[in-house]
Amino acid sequence: MKYTHHNHELNKNHIGIEVYLKGWVAKTRNLGGLLFIDLRDRFGMTQLVVKPENKNYETALKIRNEFVIEAKGIVIERENKNLNMPTGEIEVDVFDLVILNTSDNPPLIIANDTDALEDTRLKYRYLDLRRPVMQNFLIKRHEIVQSIRQTLVDEGFYELETPILGKSTPEGARDYLVPSRLYPGSFYALPQSPQIYKQLFMIAGFEKYFQVARCFRDEDLRSDRQPEFTQIDIESSFVEEEDVREIIEKIMVNTFKKVLNEEVKAPFEIMTYHKAMELYGTDKPDLRYEMLLKDYTEFFKGIDIPLFNDEPMVKGLILEHGESISRKKVDQLTEHVKKNHGKALAFVKYSKGSYTGSIIKYLNEEQLQSLNLGEDHVLFLVPGSFDDVSSSLGALRIELANQFNLIPKDVYKFIWINEWPLLEYDEEEKRFYAKHHPFTAPVNALVLKNNPHQAMAKAYDIVLNGYEIGGGSIRIHNQDVQRLMFDTLGLTKEDVQHRFGFFVDALKYGTPPHGGLALGLDRIVMLMTNTTNIKDVIAFPKTQSAKDMMMQSPSDVDQKQLDELELKVGK
Amino acid sequence: MKYTHHNHELNKNHIGIEVYLKGWVAKTRNLGGLLFIDLRDRFGMTQLVVKPENKNYETALKIRNEFVIEAKGIVIERENKNLNMPTGEIEVDVFDLVILNTSDNPPLIIANDTDALEDTRLKYRYLDLRRPVMQNFLIKRHEIVQSIRQTLVDEGFYELETPILGKSTPEGARDYLVPSRLYPGSFYALPQSPQIYKQLFMIAGFEKYFQVARCFRDEDLRSDRQPEFTQIDIESSFVEEEDVREIIEKIMVNTFKKVLNEEVKAPFEIMTYHKAMELYGTDKPDLRYEMLLKDYTEFFKGIDIPLFNDEPMVKGLILEHGESISRKKVDQLTEHVKKNHGKALAFVKYSKGSYTGSIIKYLNEEQLQSLNLGEDHVLFLVPGSFDDVSSSLGALRIELANQFNLIPKDVYKFIWINEWPLLEYDEEEKRFYAKHHPFTAPVNALVLKNNPHQAMAKAYDIVLNGYEIGGGSIRIHNQDVQRLMFDTLGLTKEDVQHRFGFFVDALKYGTPPHGGLALGLDRIVMLMTNTTNIKDVIAFPKTQSAKDMMMQSPSDVDQKQLDELELKVGK
Repeated sequence: MKYTHHNHELNKNHIGIEVYLKGWVAKTRNLGGLLFIDLRDRFGMTQLVVKPENKNYETALKIRNEFVIEAKGIVIERENKNLNMPTGEIEVDVFDLVILNTSDNPPLIIANDTDALEDTRLKYRYLDLRRPVMQNFLIKRHEIVQSIRQTLVDEGFYELETPILGKSTPEGARDYLVPSRLYPGSFYALPQSPQIYKQLFMIAGFEKYFQVARCFRDEDLRSDRQPEFTQIDIESSFVEEEDVREIIEKIMVNTFKKVLNEEVKAPFEIMTYHKAMELYGTDKPDLRYEMLLKDYTEFFKGIDIPLFNDEPMVKGLILEHGESISRKKVDQLTEHVKKNHGKALAFVKYSKGSYTGSIIKYLNEEQLQSLNLGEDHVLFLVPGSFDDVSSSLGALRIELANQFNLIPKDVYKFIWINEWPLLEYDEEEKRFYAKHHPFTAPVNALVLKNNPHQAMAKAYDIVLNGYEIGGGSIRIHNQDVQRLMFDTLGLTKEDVQHRFGFFVDALKYGTPPHGGLALGLDRIVMLMTNTTNIKDVIAFPKTQSAKDMMMQSPSDVDQKQLDELELKVGK
Repeated sequence: MKYTHHNHELNKNHIGIEVYLKGWVAKTRNLGGLLFIDLRDRFGMTQLVVKPENKNYETALKIRNEFVIEAKGIVIERENKNLNMPTGEIEVDVFDLVILNTSDNPPLIIANDTDALEDTRLKYRYLDLRRPVMQNFLIKRHEIVQSIRQTLVDEGFYELETPILGKSTPEGARDYLVPSRLYPGSFYALPQSPQIYKQLFMIAGFEKYFQVARCFRDEDLRSDRQPEFTQIDIESSFVEEEDVREIIEKIMVNTFKKVLNEEVKAPFEIMTYHKAMELYGTDKPDLRYEMLLKDYTEFFKGIDIPLFNDEPMVKGLILEHGESISRKKVDQLTEHVKKNHGKALAFVKYSKGSYTGSIIKYLNEEQLQSLNLGEDHVLFLVPGSFDDVSSSLGALRIELANQFNLIPKDVYKFIWINEWPLLEYDEEEKRFYAKHHPFTAPVNALVLKNNPHQAMAKAYDIVLNGYEIGGGSIRIHNQDVQRLMFDTLGLTKEDVQHRFGFFVDALKYGTPPHGGLALGLDRIVMLMTNTTNIKDVIAFPKTQSAKDMMMQSPSDVDQKQLDELELKVGK
């Protein structure tokens, strides 16, 4: 390469040497004839200075923002140093300058702060990505992937590829379909995950597999969902849950150290699904702050409060420093609680020696005191079923943490959630669904057979700061158990044969015990780069309505293409 | 992990120690009550022995091939050593044995040599992949990818992901389409390559990008093609052809060293497209053997041979050691020549002091002698146009090399082919097509404008042992040149706007000079593992009719799925 340096490298030690630089013009200033140019590349910025006596001065005057140029010059000490930038003590006295390409005035400001709306940013994604803050998201993503992969390779995992043109097995989310030209009326499907393929790798004896796998779900998108996403898909044979935890913990410890220089302590805490619901009201507990849920059912037994009477339980949580909690505020919070299946929200506030709140008229002084509230503590209470009380108080806990700034910055709290229910019962459809997926091993196959409502799964999620960043399980490796599972899910023999026939077959030829996990890469990058927008960490994301604003995709196609597929558009 | 060793590890140094192994039963033998079990895992094989007095003897008797077992035992010296296997000097005297899973009798032999037909192998791919030779293909693939990636990361390339749900821009091969549910009648397309995205990364300022990218082409398959394939997609800014060559050579040198312990010498030879056609009759010359094409036009000028008269040229090649060449053999070769656009095949053979062949009656002794044929040399001659003579003699050269075993084993000859024509003219459609793709930079834009037939491209292929393993180019970075290119290809302004509008737009905002290359991973793995079947190096390949025999995909889908897409099947 003919260039001598990138634009973040030069400092006082380079004074006097000749350099050859290239990049984009971030800014120009003309100070009494001296022309200053901020030259940017993916690494940083260097200041160039072109003097009026320079043979390229006329050329330099033509330069506008975002022109691509190359320049030769001598590193000199700067008069007005900028100690905020790595190259701020020097500048380059240019003796040769070439414009490699011009630029129209860009439709958005190319700097960390931009005023552009999201639609504009997505339409001109190639310019949005030129902003240093955006480049950093993708560069960190690159570093995170390299670190995760290196750990897996060092641990003896093989990186193996699985097809994108797969088979539609609708169970769970909606498939993206790909019409076949050679078999009109038949379709491939894009994989929702390589689940079956990775289990086949175990059956084939590869023992340790991983893949940075693209997955697809044609679902109505939420703000943190994309139609295609990337998971680090991992599977091993001859393992138990603790072996899987161990490898994932290694990945996390290494990656946080390498990419963020952050020491993460392993092993991570483990909590059962039930305990998490009980204490945090969610299966994705954020451990960066306290405010645990507490059971007040016993406490209120025998106290006649209309709101609580006839309810199976009453649970609550205590907000400290709740000075600002007013009736109006509680009304807002009640809305939030009700949106999350809470029946009602009661509260008791203790401040300056007296109690206020919606239920204090039902309580005597002794009862109030035994609530053990400190100065400015507010106790929030929700009556109802375990599920409803948990989900509503869980949501309230998060809401209060956000509103009262209880979440410390740059803290990473991992936790494993295990001992999940195997199945969920859909009251409307009167059938079971797999809580994870139908290949998850039951803790006890007899329970699955005789009492499926009680069946527990050998499943585990890994949660970071209140986000599920991965989930996995020990898989079924026994053909009979797999059939029982499909039976329990209400699949007919024909269904099973048609969709999973080859897989059930495969299980009978010496399938080893195996299990694994898939990490959600996009979410991990999001958490490690401290952004809340998943689009920031994907180079070319789609909108919430699954549209590519830049390419204008999806789009219409030639009639000839449809004819070849023997397809017609229309209801 | 509770297991102490893999099955390739134990040798004389381990005698006396207790080990804990697991794997698949490759074979059992019962010799006078002593039960021998060959235990296999992905690394190798260990012999277990179970004695009749063992508490697990009854269990062991039940074991059949492909059962999954685990065993504890003591390493002992073997009586009948097998020095052909790494563990052949020891065996494991088992004291504890557990059957983890049983196996039905597999439908194909699980060993390097199998008698199964390809259809069976594809249907039971998970068993086919259990054969050590097949595991080795994918393990080598893993190693090759890691090595290529490591070189690129070390050189400062970022691994960045691009969408699979892209836009249909039919130009070149046929797209796979994905119907959109949210916009019925609109379609995404699977990428034929990430070409436009990688150029956008350059425009966005990432400077050095790569991706192990899945690509899709809905073409009628040849035996070495698959509907989806993997390429190592590479792009850099501020580079010329030599910079791209340099990074690719580094990749190859490192990878051949790491994976095959093979020293490859860089820089590789460079040859122009025209020279390659002239000397080898192909743009993918195999340099492992000689037999260069030679021009005999001058030689035959003035000699009256009906076959050659009125033909623009006559070219030939000399086969040494052509003892076995007979008229009958030449007739077969003539068929091959004609299939490859050759008009006719003449020959002159010199053996034991005399000449034979189809044209010797037209030549006198002096003329024959000046052909300079050595003992058992056969000169093959084809008359016709440069293109036809080249392609037919090029094909003949390969045919002879194969038939006469002229290709040395384990030799790797790389060559760069550059200076390609920019365009191909389709006489039927009366229009130009891009020889590489429409983003390839012309050597001279003025020639493209004024004399497109003569326009040359800044394009280059890398060829290994007669296979194109990668191709690339310096790209157009100037908006006007890109428009000129689309014009020359006969795209209307509306076409350009509809398909590539955003991209032509992008070029005007400070696009740096850039270029790159894409390596065909599947083919590289094929060549490095010495197989000729591309399916061998893909875990779950499709048949030549794009079918997945194992999953039975493509398949029909539920009516509900089609309804949601507002699609109807039918002509």
